[in-house]
Amino acid sequence: MKKVVTLGEIMLRLSTQTGELLNQANALSVHYGGAEANVAVSLAHFGYQAYFVSKVPVNPLGIAAERHLKSHGVHTEFLLKGGERLGTYYVEAGVGNRSSQVTYDRKYSSFSQLLAEEINIESILEGASLIHITGITLALSPALRELILLIFKKAKEMGVLVSFDFNYRAKLWSQQEASNAIKPLMPYMDICFCGELDAVQLLGIVPADGSLPQEERLKYYYQKIKELYPNIRWFSSTFRTVISATSNRLQGNLFMNEQLYQSKVYQLEPIVERIGGGDSYAAGILRGILEELPARQIISFATAASALKHTIQGDCNSFSKEEVIQFAENESGVITR
Amino acid sequence: MKKVVTLGEIMLRLSTQTGELLNQANALSVHYGGAEANVAVSLAHFGYQAYFVSKVPVNPLGIAAERHLKSHGVHTEFLLKGGERLGTYYVEAGVGNRSSQVTYDRKYSSFSQLLAEEINIESILEGASLIHITGITLALSPALRELILLIFKKAKEMGVLVSFDFNYRAKLWSQQEASNAIKPLMPYMDICFCGELDAVQLLGIVPADGSLPQEERLKYYYQKIKELYPNIRWFSSTFRTVISATSNRLQGNLFMNEQLYQSKVYQLEPIVERIGGGDSYAAGILRGILEELPARQIISFATAASALKHTIQGDCNSFSKEEVIQFAENESGVITR
Amino acid sequence: MKKVVTLGEIMLRLSTQTGELLNQANALSVHYGGAEANVAVSLAHFGYQAYFVSKVPVNPLGIAAERHLKSHGVHTEFLLKGGERLGTYYVEAGVGNRSSQVTYDRKYSSFSQLLAEEINIESILEGASLIHITGITLALSPALRELILLIFKKAKEMGVLVSFDFNYRAKLWSQQEASNAIKPLMPYMDICFCGELDAVQLLGIVPADGSLPQEERLKYYYQKIKELYPNIRWFSSTFRTVISATSNRLQGNLFMNEQLYQSKVYQLEPIVERIGGGDSYAAGILRGILEELPARQIISFATAASALKHTIQGDCNSFSKEEVIQFAENESGVITR
Amino acid sequence: MKKVVTLGEIMLRLSTQTGELLNQANALSVHYGGAEANVAVSLAHFGYQAYFVSKVPVNPLGIAAERHLKSHGVHTEFLLKGGERLGTYYVEAGVGNRSSQVTYDRKYSSFSQLLAEEINIESILEGASLIHITGITLALSPALRELILLIFKKAKEMGVLVSFDFNYRAKLWSQQEASNAIKPLMPYMDICFCGELDAVQLLGIVPADGSLPQEERLKYYYQKIKELYPNIRWFSSTFRTVISATSNRLQGNLFMNEQLYQSKVYQLEPIVERIGGGDSYAAGILRGILEELPARQIISFATAASALKHTIQGDCNSFSKEEVIQFAENESGVITR
Amino acid sequence: MKKVVTLGEIMLRLSTQTGELLNQANALSVHYGGAEANVAVSLAHFGYQAYFVSKVPVNPLGIAAERHLKSHGVHTEFLLKGGERLGTYYVEAGVGNRSSQVTYDRKYSSFSQLLAEEINIESILEGASLIHITGITLALSPALRELILLIFKKAKEMGVLVSFDFNYRAKLWSQQEASNAIKPLMPYMDICFCGELDAVQLLGIVPADGSLPQEERLKYYYQKIKELYPNIRWFSSTFRTVISATSNRLQGNLFMNEQLYQSKVYQLEPIVERIGGGDSYAAGILRGILEELPARQIISFATAASALKHTIQGDCNSFSKEEVIQFAENESGVITR
Amino acid sequence: MKKVVTLGEIMLRLSTQTGELLNQANALSVHYGGAEANVAVSLAHFGYQAYFVSKVPVNPLGIAAERHLKSHGVHTEFLLKGGERLGTYYVEAGVGNRSSQVTYDRKYSSFSQLLAEEINIESILEGASLIHITGITLALSPALRELILLIFKKAKEMGVLVSFDFNYRAKLWSQQEASNAIKPLMPYMDICFCGELDAVQLLGIVPADGSLPQEERLKYYYQKIKELYPNIRWFSSTFRTVISATSNRLQGNLFMNEQLYQSKVYQLEPIVERIGGGDSYAAGILRGILEELPARQIISFATAASALKHTIQGDCNSFSKEEVIQFAENESGVITR
Repeated sequence: MKKVVTLGEIMLRLSTQTGELLNQANALSVHYGGAEANVAVSLAHFGYQAYFVSKVPVNPLGIAAERHLKSHGVHTEFLLKGGERLGTYYVEAGVGNRSSQVTYDRKYSSFSQLLAEEINIESILEGASLIHITGITLALSPALRELILLIFKKAKEMGVLVSFDFNYRAKLWSQQEASNAIKPLMPYMDICFCGELDAVQLLGIVPADGSLPQEERLKYYYQKIKELYPNIRWFSSTFRTVISATSNRLQGNLFMNEQLYQSKVYQLEPIVERIGGGDSYAAGILRGILEELPARQIISFATAASALKHTIQGDCNSFSKEEVIQFAENESGVITR
Repeated sequence: MKKVVTLGEIMLRLSTQTGELLNQANALSVHYGGAEANVAVSLAHFGYQAYFVSKVPVNPLGIAAERHLKSHGVHTEFLLKGGERLGTYYVEAGVGNRSSQVTYDRKYSSFSQLLAEEINIESILEGASLIHITGITLALSPALRELILLIFKKAKEMGVLVSFDFNYRAKLWSQQEASNAIKPLMPYMDICFCGELDAVQLLGIVPADGSLPQEERLKYYYQKIKELYPNIRWFSSTFRTVISATSNRLQGNLFMNEQLYQSKVYQLEPIVERIGGGDSYAAGILRGILEELPARQIISFATAASALKHTIQGDCNSFSKEEVIQFAENESGVITR
Repeated sequence: MKKVVTLGEIMLRLSTQTGELLNQANALSVHYGGAEANVAVSLAHFGYQAYFVSKVPVNPLGIAAERHLKSHGVHTEFLLKGGERLGTYYVEAGVGNRSSQVTYDRKYSSFSQLLAEEINIESILEGASLIHITGITLALSPALRELILLIFKKAKEMGVLVSFDFNYRAKLWSQQEASNAIKPLMPYMDICFCGELDAVQLLGIVPADGSLPQEERLKYYYQKIKELYPNIRWFSSTFRTVISATSNRLQGNLFMNEQLYQSKVYQLEPIVERIGGGDSYAAGILRGILEELPARQIISFATAASALKHTIQGDCNSFSKEEVIQFAENESGVITR
Repeated sequence: MKKVVTLGEIMLRLSTQTGELLNQANALSVHYGGAEANVAVSLAHFGYQAYFVSKVPVNPLGIAAERHLKSHGVHTEFLLKGGERLGTYYVEAGVGNRSSQVTYDRKYSSFSQLLAEEINIESILEGASLIHITGITLALSPALRELILLIFKKAKEMGVLVSFDFNYRAKLWSQQEASNAIKPLMPYMDICFCGELDAVQLLGIVPADGSLPQEERLKYYYQKIKELYPNIRWFSSTFRTVISATSNRLQGNLFMNEQLYQSKVYQLEPIVERIGGGDSYAAGILRGILEELPARQIISFATAASALKHTIQGDCNSFSKEEVIQFAENESGVITR
Repeated sequence: MKKVVTLGEIMLRLSTQTGELLNQANALSVHYGGAEANVAVSLAHFGYQAYFVSKVPVNPLGIAAERHLKSHGVHTEFLLKGGERLGTYYVEAGVGNRSSQVTYDRKYSSFSQLLAEEINIESILEGASLIHITGITLALSPALRELILLIFKKAKEMGVLVSFDFNYRAKLWSQQEASNAIKPLMPYMDICFCGELDAVQLLGIVPADGSLPQEERLKYYYQKIKELYPNIRWFSSTFRTVISATSNRLQGNLFMNEQLYQSKVYQLEPIVERIGGGDSYAAGILRGILEELPARQIISFATAASALKHTIQGDCNSFSKEEVIQFAENESGVITR
Repeated sequence: MKKVVTLGEIMLRLSTQTGELLNQANALSVHYGGAEANVAVSLAHFGYQAYFVSKVPVNPLGIAAERHLKSHGVHTEFLLKGGERLGTYYVEAGVGNRSSQVTYDRKYSSFSQLLAEEINIESILEGASLIHITGITLALSPALRELILLIFKKAKEMGVLVSFDFNYRAKLWSQQEASNAIKPLMPYMDICFCGELDAVQLLGIVPADGSLPQEERLKYYYQKIKELYPNIRWFSSTFRTVISATSNRLQGNLFMNEQLYQSKVYQLEPIVERIGGGDSYAAGILRGILEELPARQIISFATAASALKHTIQGDCNSFSKEEVIQFAENESGVITR
């Protein structure tokens, strides 16, 4: 079993029931998750030795977050304990044409106040095949930006695959800040999850001709980025058409060997839970790359994993590799009995 | 903050869970609502001093109904206490092609036995900008019909805008009874919520040519009614296409200044709760009129308020003016984070 | 009230909530049901003296299963007590493009170990108009196969209508086993529920020309089977198009008097619970035959009963004859109040 | 199996969760029950053919009430359908030193408006061993008082045992009204459930010397009543010491053959549900009398049945005769595994 | 109706179910409360115009906190909007000999960062009869300490009664800090809630002779404090004996006119919710003082209000004055029906 | 961290809510547990590398059972996959004087059909400090008895401490069977959990003088067993006084170095969940022995761990060593805030 490492924040999520606003709720559902934590969970279910690096407070919420990770088989040896609080956020789940609303209460969290020197970079990368981080982590503090740069450099040295997901969140930082933080990391990446908006707004690529089909535009952006950062071997993203909060269409894109590969288009309806859909997708791509699968298999697997995730509650995918493959081949809705 | 007044019954609603019949239920959800009460709640959330006039029994259910109103900021100074019982109704929520079933148990309620002399009409109208009442209230007793007539006359004298929603309920009275009760009120109305069926069946307007488009027919009816009652300055209604109990299409209509204005068509799917959708719409129209907005803004706001209501549980809309406007401009289902 | 008899297994069903897998669940919903038990329940609600013949253990689960039957008015005089356990199964309800997953834990159940001699065949058939059994019962043991053959023979002698539903379940037995068990029963049937796959795979009918429309193919199969078993007067089945686990299309087919009659096509969306949909349909057909209704009424009633079942939780239909008829005539989703 | 008959009202009960007031509740638990209905349920579980005579409305609540009865094996052939509504009541369950609060909403119920002529007295008593009625039924209307008198007279003629439970409820009628209604029934009773307060306040017995022990006083009252109505062969009641809403002590008393027999004293703590405790006791006494058991066995069984009832939710006892006997012999709290 | 004012923090409370730890919970109950907010709620239910002064963030949680206050009739005109977050805390409810555990997450809350200049002291005190504040508010920031001092001084000037509850929380500050903050406020108080530990540890009173009975010791402390601060006319506190988290004994103490008055001792068992018990008590004392009741009535009412609070969920008492009086006179646990 | 190993069955437990019987339940709580699994969980929380050896089926319930173990940090490398089913049992939780009722459905489980050769004994014991097994495992099959004997012998050889808990269950086997199975294991034990009844009924020790105090009798039995099996260095058991299902008294006993040590007596009231109380105790004893603590500390810690367990839901203790110690020192019920 290969070792894979992700680093980021794990948060407590408190959500209302469908059709209920926070001011109506007298109970909230409890989940734990975060972009990188969710990727670690998926990779653990796909059969990897997944390690999650983070920091949680020494209180019952920190214990609960760790227990969540362990229940999915994620290794928590690098989960630091300390700091003031566990990042928290509240979700009023959208339905129909009302969108989900996220209320963040994550400032001053233990992880956001992590110092670079608390992490022993060599030991977390020791023996690892891959390290994965997202833009959310960069948004949290200058110290984290500095830490990630150090990690990426060391990973490069040690021959560990470097994966980065832009995951831009307008509620956390400005495009300018994001751009400044991400650009210095680009030369170290092997795998890059980003889309059209990221290319234009964060990397400053000249916009493609708007009359081109969506996939042509995406191809153009990936080629342009690759010209700047030839170290990047895989680019990936999804096309998501939002019909309503309950109904989406989803297609995966993978650019490798100078070619764009696309999955089938999934009709996601009804959506049980959209949160974590992107992380599940990223984990699927990473698994395909680690297994050195052909491009079509990688993108088919990753998009199926994401589609499947939309049908269950919680932030993370607990389907095994086999279940995803079976679903990818035979998605239907027919009862098995 | 302008004072607005509504008068009607507030009831206890007991509903089954989705996909459950009353004979399967071992718990029922509790809500409090009623057409006029719901309008008061919406107007309170839109920033008005909303007063609700009614009567509830001196028991824990009466207290709970009052508490519901207060929690939404509705003033309860004119909520009388006494009588025998709180009107109650049971809802088996429809789903797909099975309709919702309402079982009324509202007879002998405190409000339905209210006497005209219990209400100090001058004091409730004192300083008010608007009074709103629906046909449901008229259906409950001759005494209430008499009371409403007195109120409408006095409102006219005092320069208070008079709004009336036909809200015809076949389970409560016959078309003939409704017609007899509503016609005498027509000369006092400024704002009238009614549709094609109301025009033909309750006001006796000669049916329009059935081959005309729906909006042409509606325009014809409003013009005809206005010929009879030139005092009415605003007519409004919705076109609702019922695809299933879970999926509707909704469009708002406003007739003013001799013109029919229509909102965009909302696709409501899935519908979390349809009850209160019309009241939310009416409150939206009233807010637009009170704010003296242009017709297009009135109808856009009102229909958005109604669409939004369909995505939450409970009888009433607790969205603020700002939230409705934002939704009207940008309804999508895209998660905000 | 006519007496009708069904015989089969009643099981405990434990299901997760929507969007939840078994490994996420900390509570499971409890239902009791089984193909023949569900048919008995429907027939009781349609106004028959329905008797259910089975065997349950002497423990609280056996008591609960009996209580379930009684609450729906099914007679339990022929419900034997004894054996080791109540058959159980777990359902992870499907949603969208993820199918429902059934995990059976029914081996060694009291019913599956029933011996033919435990049943007094004459007494259960005494005065009955109809006996109904499905292929699931045959799949459970050789002893049950032998018992059913004896019952069918005796029913024929006593002039009791014999109804059989193929209900093939790949998780329980092979096609060959099913074929061997069902063929000897064919000469005793009056009513036969089977479809294209059953005809080809279990009865060995030569496949129809695949380019023919679906209904023509079905007609061909029914004619072919009737050539072999002229005793069968009614054939029936449904066409179900699975768009997703949440959205299906359903149409009923009835072949009698050498003609194929088809119901309207129901759009089932969203589906609250699919389990029991077929049993509800079968009960509808049986009621129509017992009432000697015209073919169109039979098929319209049965398909409506099945459509209605999809909108409620639990294995069985608790709608009355009148409610089904009203729905069949006026299915819409419009709220009644 | 002997036939037994009870007649009374069955109501919908809506209760809050422990520690919750009605004005805090957003869901209410649903139960169906009533004094005589509960006795019928217990007797059905003890192995009798129990018939419950009443009237419920033709709506989903009436159906649900009937289904409740059937699920416990009570025969509903004499359950009339019609009238305006199902009697309803709300319970805020007490806890510790806060008492339960009952809010009745039972006026105008179908049963309370039942007319004597709707009941075919001969047919309900045909073949019965016992008829049981309580004072609550008398409190509901003059027509019901008249009906009960007719029933008691006919029962006497037909040799059916007549049982009456005073069950005085101050919220329903005055002591004077109760006294006037009950006295004419006394000459027809064989079994009478009443206590010290009933004897003094409703039957006008001269109070016993207050310094006597409680059981001596009770014996005195029973002797005095028997002097007036020598037809009564069994008297019974319980001594209940209320430490708090959660903790009671309970002892059963049976007076027969000129002697007072007392059960052991049960410590009931915590009490899950007190409602129905008395009905469960009465059913236990009736079963003992019908079985012609020795006095000590009667009173031991009845008090155990009542104690057991306090440990489960809902209005009625669903324990079998065997379970009650086992509990009576071996009450402990030790887990069996 | 007299105007009363309280000022403090209102927080979101998230609690586990009974017998569940945070690391086991997948749903949390939602309540809103805080010492001063709870007192305001109680006083509103007792019939006062209660105003609550605080600051909440502009997000759905701030809205929900305000809605909670309004639903209890508390005026929110002085509830400021702004800042970063709503103070939050988590409760693992204790049971038996396991204590409740509180996990605070209240740092950086909007209220804790309130500046003195944000409050218009004159306008909040205008026309008020009483202002009530607790030590928790002082613990939150120097700015709040300064603000409270200004408020107390101004209240004195304006003839508003000043009430202060020590409410010492070791998790928020040290005894030394508390002492430094509270002492300067003492000369302005009219009503002071404090106990033996407060007197010794925070006010530096020489400890009483430990062999004296508890009430003698308390009297001694109150006399000593009064020597130092003769302005204080009422002292109050409770004696609480903790048998277990589920079972307590409670007695109220009131010192006025140089005498100590004590209530009866309540046995609280089982305790539904202990949080808010002290606030309910304080509100009871304040109501008695405002009504100028005799000492015995004040202490009896306040202790009853607190006992009653322990029997319901949530932070605050929603019983009316009449309900508390009835309970005080007739606490029992006997069901009323 | 020391390695410890337990081997036994892990089952699915389905329980009703408090005050609810199985025939009333429409949802059941889900837990996973078993005597040896629970000990492993406790030891993992106490800081050991705990391994659980067992066999679960390849289905979602097997996955869920494994996930339960992992969430508590138990190593599942030796959890075999295969066989027919997961052992299941149903619990109707007792309350007051009604006992809990356990309905087993564990026959034919994967574990009960485990063959000795499926286990690699050397590898499970490799590097372990302790192996713990209970009598329940022996009861399940002859193959398991044989396996355990081989394991105990090998453990002795390898210097691994051998711990055995009699855990006699009358529903699983007779005293004679148990005696035959356990006696051959005695010579290999280092730690033995047994009580008076075990000594007399299973080991055939001559009964002690019944007039002796309970602790004297226990001492006598332990001395007698030690005479027969001098290899046993530690004996332990609890005295449990069952006042009701809700209220127990518990005291721990430890016999070592020829002396009997007893813990304080805990009053357990109310009991949230009794299941797993004994396993929690056993784990506490084992931890004390492994840490080579003084006898008084061992018994104090173990009994506190068990008392704490009774206050939470689920089969197993998730308190850390520190939490247990803090509770042992300071059990009270006082809220910490």
